[in-house]
Amino acid sequence: MSRLHPFDGVKDYEIRLASKLVKDAYPASAKCHFVRIDRMDPPKNDMIKYLAAEREGLPLPQIPRILHVYYWTNTLEFNKALVNVTAGHIITKQKQPQGVVGPMLPDDMIEWEEHCNNHPLVKAEIAKLKLPPGYSVRNDPWIYATDDPNEKRPLVQHFMYVLAGNGHSESNHYSLPLKFSPVFECFTRKFVRMDYLPGGFDETVTPTGPWQQVPCVEYHSDLHDEQKFPRDVKPLLVSQPDGPSFTVKGNKVEWQGWEFRVAPTAREGFAVYDVWFKGRQVFYRISLSEMTVPYGDPRAPYHRKQAFDLGDCGFGTCGNKLELGCDCLGVIKYLDGMGIHGNGEPFIIPNTVCMHEQDDGLLYKHVNYRTNNAVVARRRIFIVQCIATVANYEYVVNLKFVSDGSMDIEARATGILSTMPIDENVKVPWGTIVAPNCMAAYHQHILSFRIDPAIDGHNNTVVYDDTKKLPVSKLNPFGIGFVTDRKIVEKAGYIEQSPFTNRAYKIINENVINPVAKTPVGYKIELPARQMLLADDTSFNTKRAKYATQQMWVTKYRDDQLFAAGEFTNQSQKDTGIAVWANGVDDVRNEDIVVWATMGFTHIPRVEDFPVMPVEIHNIHIAPVNFFDKNPALDIPGANNNFNKSVLVPGEEEKPCCSTKI
Amino acid sequence: MSRLHPFDGVKDYEIRLASKLVKDAYPASAKCHFVRIDRMDPPKNDMIKYLAAEREGLPLPQIPRILHVYYWTNTLEFNKALVNVTAGHIITKQKQPQGVVGPMLPDDMIEWEEHCNNHPLVKAEIAKLKLPPGYSVRNDPWIYATDDPNEKRPLVQHFMYVLAGNGHSESNHYSLPLKFSPVFECFTRKFVRMDYLPGGFDETVTPTGPWQQVPCVEYHSDLHDEQKFPRDVKPLLVSQPDGPSFTVKGNKVEWQGWEFRVAPTAREGFAVYDVWFKGRQVFYRISLSEMTVPYGDPRAPYHRKQAFDLGDCGFGTCGNKLELGCDCLGVIKYLDGMGIHGNGEPFIIPNTVCMHEQDDGLLYKHVNYRTNNAVVARRRIFIVQCIATVANYEYVVNLKFVSDGSMDIEARATGILSTMPIDENVKVPWGTIVAPNCMAAYHQHILSFRIDPAIDGHNNTVVYDDTKKLPVSKLNPFGIGFVTDRKIVEKAGYIEQSPFTNRAYKIINENVINPVAKTPVGYKIELPARQMLLADDTSFNTKRAKYATQQMWVTKYRDDQLFAAGEFTNQSQKDTGIAVWANGVDDVRNEDIVVWATMGFTHIPRVEDFPVMPVEIHNIHIAPVNFFDKNPALDIPGANNNFNKSVLVPGEEEKPCCSTKI
Repeated sequence: MSRLHPFDGVKDYEIRLASKLVKDAYPASAKCHFVRIDRMDPPKNDMIKYLAAEREGLPLPQIPRILHVYYWTNTLEFNKALVNVTAGHIITKQKQPQGVVGPMLPDDMIEWEEHCNNHPLVKAEIAKLKLPPGYSVRNDPWIYATDDPNEKRPLVQHFMYVLAGNGHSESNHYSLPLKFSPVFECFTRKFVRMDYLPGGFDETVTPTGPWQQVPCVEYHSDLHDEQKFPRDVKPLLVSQPDGPSFTVKGNKVEWQGWEFRVAPTAREGFAVYDVWFKGRQVFYRISLSEMTVPYGDPRAPYHRKQAFDLGDCGFGTCGNKLELGCDCLGVIKYLDGMGIHGNGEPFIIPNTVCMHEQDDGLLYKHVNYRTNNAVVARRRIFIVQCIATVANYEYVVNLKFVSDGSMDIEARATGILSTMPIDENVKVPWGTIVAPNCMAAYHQHILSFRIDPAIDGHNNTVVYDDTKKLPVSKLNPFGIGFVTDRKIVEKAGYIEQSPFTNRAYKIINENVINPVAKTPVGYKIELPARQMLLADDTSFNTKRAKYATQQMWVTKYRDDQLFAAGEFTNQSQKDTGIAVWANGVDDVRNEDIVVWATMGFTHIPRVEDFPVMPVEIHNIHIAPVNFFDKNPALDIPGANNNFNKSVLVPGEEEKPCCSTKI
Repeated sequence: MSRLHPFDGVKDYEIRLASKLVKDAYPASAKCHFVRIDRMDPPKNDMIKYLAAEREGLPLPQIPRILHVYYWTNTLEFNKALVNVTAGHIITKQKQPQGVVGPMLPDDMIEWEEHCNNHPLVKAEIAKLKLPPGYSVRNDPWIYATDDPNEKRPLVQHFMYVLAGNGHSESNHYSLPLKFSPVFECFTRKFVRMDYLPGGFDETVTPTGPWQQVPCVEYHSDLHDEQKFPRDVKPLLVSQPDGPSFTVKGNKVEWQGWEFRVAPTAREGFAVYDVWFKGRQVFYRISLSEMTVPYGDPRAPYHRKQAFDLGDCGFGTCGNKLELGCDCLGVIKYLDGMGIHGNGEPFIIPNTVCMHEQDDGLLYKHVNYRTNNAVVARRRIFIVQCIATVANYEYVVNLKFVSDGSMDIEARATGILSTMPIDENVKVPWGTIVAPNCMAAYHQHILSFRIDPAIDGHNNTVVYDDTKKLPVSKLNPFGIGFVTDRKIVEKAGYIEQSPFTNRAYKIINENVINPVAKTPVGYKIELPARQMLLADDTSFNTKRAKYATQQMWVTKYRDDQLFAAGEFTNQSQKDTGIAVWANGVDDVRNEDIVVWATMGFTHIPRVEDFPVMPVEIHNIHIAPVNFFDKNPALDIPGANNNFNKSVLVPGEEEKPCCSTKI
């Protein structure tokens, strides 16, 4: 096999070796049960040397491939090992303190779901429902989260639903939530407690009785009438007859002056590495780092609904197999991800990342009104996409490289709302009724994107510029002047949002001065001002997700500080990530730094979000600011219809295309 | 000719008739000089009856076509007439008070430019530059704006530039600004004053001397080397082999459940009317209403740089002739606009509005993790686009209809920065050096979109919902609860921005209750929180653009209240639009109302914005909120590759498409 690049994703043989080494280190009776095996990022200092040698065509240093392995032993002990799969030995293995719960394995969730439904106490409760023929019960195992510092058991809460549709597997059980919710221990599968869910406007619960039949709001076309007379949508085809403009060799992508590497990862979905544009280094690494989803219904057991979809599950682990003509249109390059079974055997998650080009409207245009001569360029983008299904919800992460040296990080939320039972004629101030007897609670999605910059090198500085009125003065007699005011982030910490001063976050390199603007080169990170985490400061929600309380964080770079809420979020008591690293002590000016951009949105469900939710779209724009000495996209060929071959609607007469030459 | 629809754009014969009637009403010596002729919107009460009859197939009432005519008489008198072109008579004609200056006519601007360059005093100043061979001088006539309540003359300020490029017409004169700036009276063409522009960090000016040669930063491919080795961009073709999914009959568009009419207009570019989705009325009229562009350089004469690009010029009047394969890709339907010459003769501005479909990624997706069955729909959008060139800048307005009943209003700013001279080694706190001796001042673009709602009828109400923490209590012991709190706008006025309470603006119909959610039906208007107008409260900038001080306004509907800063903005002393109409007195609850959404952005120029600016993109999202009883897009056929015909990059092996059926 060819030599791996240090940024290549984990390989099946590496997983197999790592799990074998770990298993061999224990007696068979320990019954190693694996929940995550993925590669570590190589130490940055080593990689800087490696990448420099690679650029210069020099011999490449050897960097060993290290895997982290999370696994349970003896049913109740959670462990982490680091394995050098290049050398073939375990570096460390360590039993984690009681209460540390690693990520969930999809295989396990499916098994627990079945176990729950077959448990005598659950069956007894189901029997009380007296379901009509053709109806059964389904459950979603849910992350248990945290409300008790003394709770050390790994637990799972099962939300129960009626499955209608005469046993059709795609019937939308989320439309028919039930009012009991058993809690089990994860690995011993011990029954812990039967929770009952309120149906009224307060926390009062009632014993299970016969289910009151209401219609199920279905999303699958087999089960609803909407598609009997579908809209007349005509095909819209995207083709590239001369092939795509990008090349992918291994995991190295080159497109329109951009160069970077893409690696699928179990936790993040994917990460991009070593990003350059037009021969200049811009970023060392970019990825989604964490997402917490806290719900606003204060009543037990909903107060514990706070998922960490990356830390508790993993966007790669839950990554969709993406499909031609469904998830992406055009000429597509796919990358495969890697999953594991509990026994440590790897399996391929095919097509978990897709990459393709899109046209995105105009990039720039100017018409000289004297001559009517136009200069026009189209905005071409290159998209790296993954989609994760985390139980009910789907998340689409698009990293978009733009032909002008800018980037967009776009997240789309879709899928199905997490629903709760509600009695007829009841309203609650923390939720929307989205179907009969079915309520979707208000909640937030708070994503952290980890941006490791390398703006013309690794020593970077974060500044923020406010735009402010000039006071009326001799210089400003008419009171119309305004100026920018720059603040420099000296110590690891956060920057407060300030939309009304047009606060702009910038990553600059103070050591490189733009020859035209005479100011340091930089990139800006644009996020709209947003409500951050809503929970009380003293709440577990806040303690566990400190990162979610501010929009922009800066920390000093350290290896292995990748995840905003810390390494182990499942049933965590506190944020062991940014809460620790943004310490107010570390110098972050003209240092190797990491920027954490928090994309938050409070989701007040609409009826229109049910039974499947039209995408909610959110965006971070990353653009050069006085980095280049002019618009770096002047070399894009002018748009013209010999190239783009658009047509008029049938029956209309064509007029000649614009002249971009005189 | 076929009978016009009342919402059809103005016709050439209507313009001809109106200008003839007006001319005939004056002696020839009055020398009527026309600057704008366009149709008025019909009275809404009449239109409601008309549209109801149209929907029911009943006989249509006759609604006369009324044109407004702006024109100068006797060189110095500005007049407005209303002409009934159906009946063929003038309704009113009125000389406007001195100081009221109508919009500029593009023909005039070009004539003034030439007049300025040939004026002896200007030529004398140019001579002092001692320009090298191959260099000449060009000027941009600029809106004079306002700094003196006693100034009643229509004036124009000429910004002067060196034209390099050996006489090449597309050389970028904006790269080489000069330091003198003559002011002329518009129609008498009298020389008023020579302004001199500062080159240092304060308001000091110097007499004109020999021009110091610096390189010109060119944007045209004839004049720079960037395209000698253009990027390898491969074609990306958008085709619709079965034709588009939309139909356009006259100005009536039908697409994917949407129905509306589109009319090009001189001032706004275009307006859409009578918008329905899936058989329910949503909006009566939507258009861009105004945009002001104030600059932050406090020094004379820049303190007067405050353009009103709609009121002073007009987006239709300055509308581009859009081109296949340049401005839009795919299968395109164009509409023509209408311009006039000073003599009242009409001319067609061809293809000033384009309409087409686009694919916009995923609309919704859910994968049942138990079965891996996916339901996937693509987000198809229908775009109505116009592009206006207002001297140096280009603005792209896209109204996007989405297949899920939502809309986006997208504005893209591109073109060339308005530049000022700056001496070498000088920096200023209100501008960026974008080329040698060339500074681009900070400025704002503040657009007002006028949204005339008809959410299930004309009696609508604006509310805003804040999302707030619940205090810790017996109900909320863990401090994680949050709820929404609704405020109702009772009187005409504005709503303050409040991003940190997730403030959401909604237009509801209190008379129609959603049967599922049990709350009034509505649509929400989503804008990111933004800095509004930066000028001092006492400044002319603020007095003239009160609308630009708040993000969201609500007024009671009245005919002819279309333009946020008032009808006549050129050299205006004050906002005669929203400043008057948002009076705190009119009842706006459950009334026929108008919502004005202010999209503001402060533009701190980057070197990358020069010599031609990559688009800056801003968006307003308009979406149903508990308007439908479920996701209204379930009838979209599931995405599949038989339909979408995407392909793998060459050399890769295909895997079967996702099954959306079991």
